[in-house]
Amino acid sequence: MRALYVGRFQPFHNGHLEVVRHILSRADELILVIGSAQASHSAMNPFTAGERFEMIRAAMVDEGFDLSKIYIVPVEDVKRNAIWVTHVKSLVPTFSEVYTNEPLANLLFEEAGVHVHKTPLFSRGDYSSTNVRAAIVAHGSWDHLVPPAVKQAILAIGGVARLMRIHGSDKS
Amino acid sequence: MRALYVGRFQPFHNGHLEVVRHILSRADELILVIGSAQASHSAMNPFTAGERFEMIRAAMVDEGFDLSKIYIVPVEDVKRNAIWVTHVKSLVPTFSEVYTNEPLANLLFEEAGVHVHKTPLFSRGDYSSTNVRAAIVAHGSWDHLVPPAVKQAILAIGGVARLMRIHGSDKS
Amino acid sequence: MRALYVGRFQPFHNGHLEVVRHILSRADELILVIGSAQASHSAMNPFTAGERFEMIRAAMVDEGFDLSKIYIVPVEDVKRNAIWVTHVKSLVPTFSEVYTNEPLANLLFEEAGVHVHKTPLFSRGDYSSTNVRAAIVAHGSWDHLVPPAVKQAILAIGGVARLMRIHGSDKS
Amino acid sequence: MRALYVGRFQPFHNGHLEVVRHILSRADELILVIGSAQASHSAMNPFTAGERFEMIRAAMVDEGFDLSKIYIVPVEDVKRNAIWVTHVKSLVPTFSEVYTNEPLANLLFEEAGVHVHKTPLFSRGDYSSTNVRAAIVAHGSWDHLVPPAVKQAILAIGGVARLMRIHGSDKS
Amino acid sequence: MRALYVGRFQPFHNGHLEVVRHILSRADELILVIGSAQASHSAMNPFTAGERFEMIRAAMVDEGFDLSKIYIVPVEDVKRNAIWVTHVKSLVPTFSEVYTNEPLANLLFEEAGVHVHKTPLFSRGDYSSTNVRAAIVAHGSWDHLVPPAVKQAILAIGGVARLMRIHGSDKS
Amino acid sequence: MRALYVGRFQPFHNGHLEVVRHILSRADELILVIGSAQASHSAMNPFTAGERFEMIRAAMVDEGFDLSKIYIVPVEDVKRNAIWVTHVKSLVPTFSEVYTNEPLANLLFEEAGVHVHKTPLFSRGDYSSTNVRAAIVAHGSWDHLVPPAVKQAILAIGGVARLMRIHGSDKS
Repeated sequence: MRALYVGRFQPFHNGHLEVVRHILSRADELILVIGSAQASHSAMNPFTAGERFEMIRAAMVDEGFDLSKIYIVPVEDVKRNAIWVTHVKSLVPTFSEVYTNEPLANLLFEEAGVHVHKTPLFSRGDYSSTNVRAAIVAHGSWDHLVPPAVKQAILAIGGVARLMRIHGSDKS
Repeated sequence: MRALYVGRFQPFHNGHLEVVRHILSRADELILVIGSAQASHSAMNPFTAGERFEMIRAAMVDEGFDLSKIYIVPVEDVKRNAIWVTHVKSLVPTFSEVYTNEPLANLLFEEAGVHVHKTPLFSRGDYSSTNVRAAIVAHGSWDHLVPPAVKQAILAIGGVARLMRIHGSDKS
Repeated sequence: MRALYVGRFQPFHNGHLEVVRHILSRADELILVIGSAQASHSAMNPFTAGERFEMIRAAMVDEGFDLSKIYIVPVEDVKRNAIWVTHVKSLVPTFSEVYTNEPLANLLFEEAGVHVHKTPLFSRGDYSSTNVRAAIVAHGSWDHLVPPAVKQAILAIGGVARLMRIHGSDKS
Repeated sequence: MRALYVGRFQPFHNGHLEVVRHILSRADELILVIGSAQASHSAMNPFTAGERFEMIRAAMVDEGFDLSKIYIVPVEDVKRNAIWVTHVKSLVPTFSEVYTNEPLANLLFEEAGVHVHKTPLFSRGDYSSTNVRAAIVAHGSWDHLVPPAVKQAILAIGGVARLMRIHGSDKS
Repeated sequence: MRALYVGRFQPFHNGHLEVVRHILSRADELILVIGSAQASHSAMNPFTAGERFEMIRAAMVDEGFDLSKIYIVPVEDVKRNAIWVTHVKSLVPTFSEVYTNEPLANLLFEEAGVHVHKTPLFSRGDYSSTNVRAAIVAHGSWDHLVPPAVKQAILAIGGVARLMRIHGSDKS
Repeated sequence: MRALYVGRFQPFHNGHLEVVRHILSRADELILVIGSAQASHSAMNPFTAGERFEMIRAAMVDEGFDLSKIYIVPVEDVKRNAIWVTHVKSLVPTFSEVYTNEPLANLLFEEAGVHVHKTPLFSRGDYSSTNVRAAIVAHGSWDHLVPPAVKQAILAIGGVARLMRIHGSDKS
């Protein structure tokens, strides 16, 4: 059984990591879709799909996941909700179940007749991409929120400076 | 060193397989880009990106390739050649070399300052996607042209009938 | 004389119905444009163009309108206001007058030299699509706001559950 | 039972008219989709969707068809065959059967699990849009190929001159 | 040395004029990019690119600038920040420096390795397009904010009425 | 009186130059639209809009034209002929006449009620962009076909090699 896991991963955090671990314990293979792949350099979507790809991959290597069972696939948005599921299906290998906590993705897959699991939350109050971005911009601590490989990747691409500048941009 | 290999893989054939083997013997990791990911159900592009993904993956499993070193990434066309390389770079992990035999991709990567290798040809006269599609439509033999897993995948999705019908469509 | 009536009809309510009755009493034929046809499954635009088409048609049948004088045409947005009127004109039969209460549509048609009528309001305080959506989400009463056929259509497609879930999505 | 009939209708000719008559004798209602609605002013697609809408409607009025059972809906192309059926479904009322002679539309609807009827051909050798356009450009006779209302509409919009100029454009 | 100056110029005001004067005193030639060229008839972007072009040109003629050293180029947005710089470069003559105060443009050019100057502010508290639009809508005084030629152009195209109507539209 | 001159200028040749001279002798100002601005790196459209901009500008400087009367504006295609004229109008300053020899542009402007002049041909048998591209690919002589500044610009960007490679690409 192959499962699909959809998120934007801006950035990939410890909660996402736990979900991946959870799915891999139940499914044979995992397709991780990097959604809104076209988006970057904005407050909600600071990182390119390629940068997110690299972060996620590095974290998975660190965790010792079996990479031969994991597909990472960037998928650009279509601007029409009614065809989004068909769009995703046309771009990735076949799958039989979906994991997501995004209510819209949940709704669209269910209307298309695909079985959707809510992902377990793993102290979601802490683990959210919004919190990670806010902590970075506020010069707060975020080491406990993301896998070390993600932090390293963000630092390597100048991600902290980018977030600060985007944040400044939004205020002005 | 990570290498990028770009093609449309309509379908993936034995020549492609040899190129993958060749690159894996030289590079640490391989990003295989399924180009024109948006295209399907036409004479030149019969299969969806998802279908091509599945064929390529199955062939790689059969060959015993180390899947943890291979990324398969569908990439939709942008309709502007001048920004295509930047588009690809924004969607995949970083890479330092490119393998391709498509003259346009070759030109665009070189103008962008990326080192491009021509792929070895491995009796290209035989191994070409055009030949595979033509053999299928002509009820000819194509077992020797593609990996067994690709043939099986094409049969499983009704690919022969699809090609025949598209071919009929183009004639009328 | 053929008149154009533009709206998003998310959903079609009793006020819209009165406007249609009003226009049919003055014009020979009515082109009803379902605007933002590409939008669906969002808080502002819950229903697909096809679903809206079906609701509107059913309400018109119930009212006994002369369907041979009415055209219902879904029109997708163009993302450029300066060409929107030309876009609409290229997709529908010729018309000589426009009815709309949307200020932007009003402005664009007038700048293009088309005569625009404001639609009579028919107790607009009550009759608005925003009110209908809010009443549904709040488990309030909305029978008095929409034609019976619209309510029936919304129930038939699971529209109440969809609105609740989209609403939940917007809050989180 | 509601049936869908898809074509480009460049222009609508007597063969199309017979198909409409045929479908109306079997189905309760007919949705006639004007495909490639975005196309116009080219050799293959000389007329806008709005112009085609007007021609088709006028011919139907002349024939005395029951207009309350017929929906005419312009639908723009999506550039991705794999999502085209979902695109059409999102824009028109629900339907249970499709009539088309275009092999690609036929293939796509069947892969989506929709029952497709081939349209009866009604001396197709004569009745084809290609023939009508060729006859107009060659100053030949085309009165016997299209309904009188279509000819009148083409003349009224300067369609003959347009076709001649587009034809000249393609030659140079 | 050729310099690029990017803005939306909704509308072009006295602060913009001072920046142009400043750049012309340092660079040999100036490419003025009218950004978001596709946008118009909205509260943030009331004027078309063509209208903005005309305003800017007229102000430059009035100022006696050497027009042979100035290029005015409308550039539509791409919806992907990661390729925006490449997009701009593909549309305008080569340039070696950029002037902008928009933080996002600043960030994107710097990540692409282009030298970016902040534009001097020239009492920015007063001179901002937002202030100009607000003053017009509030029936306030705006003569001191824009070059006379810009005011004249706005009046000539009915820009005051347009802004009022768009403003009303946003409120309702 | 301001005139619009539309072409793709792939590349700008001596015939184009004569047309510009001709228009400048009749009109007060000239807007030269670089059409299909999004296209490049193909056999029909080898050069980016930016490269074409630079070539045209350099040739005009060499000729001593009054640059203060000339606007050069790259305009991307819209994929819909029916809205192309409105698209162009929204991006450039107002104009009252058009010069073009492209039959489609001619047709579309005339249907929109704009006065169109055919451009004088100036031995067009020799002067055509197609001839220039063919001569370059065939290693023939093309000095007599283009202004010296255009040749120099093509050489500077490696345009000969690009054309050869694109040509090779098209053959295979």
